[in-house]
Amino acid sequence: MPSFSFTIDAQCPKTWARAGTIQTPHGAIRTPIFMPVGTQATVKSVSPEELCSAGAAIILANTYHLMLRPGSKLIDELGGLHSFMHWNGPLLTDSGGFQVFSLGHLRKLSEEGVTFKSHLDGSMLTLTPESVMQIEAELGADIILPLDICAPYPCPPASAREALERTHRWAERALVAKERVSEARLEHGRPGQTLFGIVQGAFEPELRQQSADFIGNLPFPGISIGGLSVGEPKSLMWEMLGYVTPNLPRNKPRHLLGVGSPEDVVIGVGLGMDMFDCALPTRVARHGGLFTRFGRVNIKAARFRSISSPIEEGCDCYTCQNYSAAYVHHLARTEEQLYYRLGSIHNIRYMSRLTTELRASILAGTYPAFRDDFLANYTPVSEKVREEQREKWRAVRLQGS
Amino acid sequence: MPSFSFTIDAQCPKTWARAGTIQTPHGAIRTPIFMPVGTQATVKSVSPEELCSAGAAIILANTYHLMLRPGSKLIDELGGLHSFMHWNGPLLTDSGGFQVFSLGHLRKLSEEGVTFKSHLDGSMLTLTPESVMQIEAELGADIILPLDICAPYPCPPASAREALERTHRWAERALVAKERVSEARLEHGRPGQTLFGIVQGAFEPELRQQSADFIGNLPFPGISIGGLSVGEPKSLMWEMLGYVTPNLPRNKPRHLLGVGSPEDVVIGVGLGMDMFDCALPTRVARHGGLFTRFGRVNIKAARFRSISSPIEEGCDCYTCQNYSAAYVHHLARTEEQLYYRLGSIHNIRYMSRLTTELRASILAGTYPAFRDDFLANYTPVSEKVREEQREKWRAVRLQGS
Repeated sequence: MPSFSFTIDAQCPKTWARAGTIQTPHGAIRTPIFMPVGTQATVKSVSPEELCSAGAAIILANTYHLMLRPGSKLIDELGGLHSFMHWNGPLLTDSGGFQVFSLGHLRKLSEEGVTFKSHLDGSMLTLTPESVMQIEAELGADIILPLDICAPYPCPPASAREALERTHRWAERALVAKERVSEARLEHGRPGQTLFGIVQGAFEPELRQQSADFIGNLPFPGISIGGLSVGEPKSLMWEMLGYVTPNLPRNKPRHLLGVGSPEDVVIGVGLGMDMFDCALPTRVARHGGLFTRFGRVNIKAARFRSISSPIEEGCDCYTCQNYSAAYVHHLARTEEQLYYRLGSIHNIRYMSRLTTELRASILAGTYPAFRDDFLANYTPVSEKVREEQREKWRAVRLQGS
Repeated sequence: MPSFSFTIDAQCPKTWARAGTIQTPHGAIRTPIFMPVGTQATVKSVSPEELCSAGAAIILANTYHLMLRPGSKLIDELGGLHSFMHWNGPLLTDSGGFQVFSLGHLRKLSEEGVTFKSHLDGSMLTLTPESVMQIEAELGADIILPLDICAPYPCPPASAREALERTHRWAERALVAKERVSEARLEHGRPGQTLFGIVQGAFEPELRQQSADFIGNLPFPGISIGGLSVGEPKSLMWEMLGYVTPNLPRNKPRHLLGVGSPEDVVIGVGLGMDMFDCALPTRVARHGGLFTRFGRVNIKAARFRSISSPIEEGCDCYTCQNYSAAYVHHLARTEEQLYYRLGSIHNIRYMSRLTTELRASILAGTYPAFRDDFLANYTPVSEKVREEQREKWRAVRLQGS
């Protein structure tokens, strides 16, 4: 069995949306897909069985956190990440680069790689395109990402270009290194891994086009789009995708890194994105924010105190099928651990159902109407609230998703 | 169907141990039984389905916490505690008295009842034997307890006697009040509740005997033994049971309140106890303490870092069946929420399996050998460590179990 394939099942005639099927050594993924984030080899508070029941087909784990603790070598010795975390479905690991850059522990950036300080014990560590391939091989996810440079927002054009060019050189080095570590894995009977390329280019249309063209033409079976959702207005993110998607090969799945909210996923699909990952749905759940078809509600609000119906009527998640909104409200207000689980399950199921509906609409040829209906009903959180939350969460970010 | 019955299935010929069956409106309970504590209508981090899978046949909820938040009237309106917390098995609620006395918010103790300050909003509240019956009727547990006075350790004999005599008068008032509220419940088609009596008497042999005699002869279908495990040496607790058990009617189940650890349950059964409840197994689990046949281990210890086998070989709990000790160690060290669940499930399953084994040994007539074998293998935590933990937890006690 090949370790990876992507087939397009349907294409929207009016937008860039498409429905596809990805095959991995740990099973198939129907796209569009939302991937919950399990930073430290666990989607916070949720068990693998619950992820499965909630419809999660693939999850993401963070290389940065796992290389520091418990260490990729140990995970390898224990049979790899799938076995370690008791998740037998497809897994994706990022490269750790985003955390090194965004968490501000970077000490030195050179052509060779990045040197940074561990947030756990202060030790100095270096990541190179080659060492990242080794680490991700030890973790053993089905889809892996190469070391890249995520430019901040805003970013001077010259710096953006410099970062991009280095990212491209690193991409080529990663491809070479990946071949080498793959051979070693295969010799040990471990399933193959698939390396996606990462498109960067900050907020420069020309760089984005150039990166899509360059990365798209390298032998990466899939493409992740990085450097977006880093603090810019959403309109700017969507604009950038307009320069990326048309310049990417049609036959490779496109993964929008670190996005997003329900409305982001609905819009992103129309701009050609097949895969999404984000800690937001589970993170906001832990803070009381639960998704409904009309927008996000705060379950801690007094109005839920005596509601005997579920969070959302008709929701088929474990939480809504078994508990009243009043009970979930009680657990959230008393900060009971069961709350974090029930809230997270609800939002994961919501995202999973949403992508299933998006797929159905693409197959039916009605994606544009689905998108417009969704956006007409769903009131997103304002940019202001979003910015406040971002600030609040930045402080605790090192603790994971 | 009567709302309660107790039958003795076997009796140890050499000790006070016996195996029995309790029938409640929400199912049968085989004794001896350990009851996990779900202070705020949730056994911290564990779902009802997981409790069931771990073999928990009955759980306890705390009236004190629930009357304050979300309030017993609201729970009643939402269909009672079973429906509220999605637990369809037998439930027991305590009277709230223990928390009022032990948490130190007591403001006034009179013949009428106790007045105390809510730890949530500082409001003054009064509990009487009658109001407690009303509150517990609203909560709707299968087994309920009357308001009592739990004397501290140590306690001057005169105060112990005074508290005991008032507890006895309150017991009689509770029985009268219970009849009245039961009639109202039955009129509304709600299942019957069973009021246990509470034996007190501090650490005075004569008072313990007197209380067992008095409470045992009132029309309570079951007996809880209170005022033990309040800081005294364990030997003193066991000594007190020697004055209680022989003076209690044989045909009523005996519940040892707030006990205990694995070794406590093994010993307590031999002293005639049928039911145990304690937050300890789940609380120590959350702090990293997991039970094995050789004693409690600290899963955070470095020696578990790379152990690919489960916490305990042969354990049939969800955690041990699906995760390595190394993964549980990783979750505990990173303070991941899934850890609290996996640890709690392991200890709940341990306690449940232990009581099943105790029952089997009683049925087989081999309880004394089982007890001796268990105690020979199991190294309990020392009194010193126990006392340090007690101090540490006292501070956070108001937050629940």
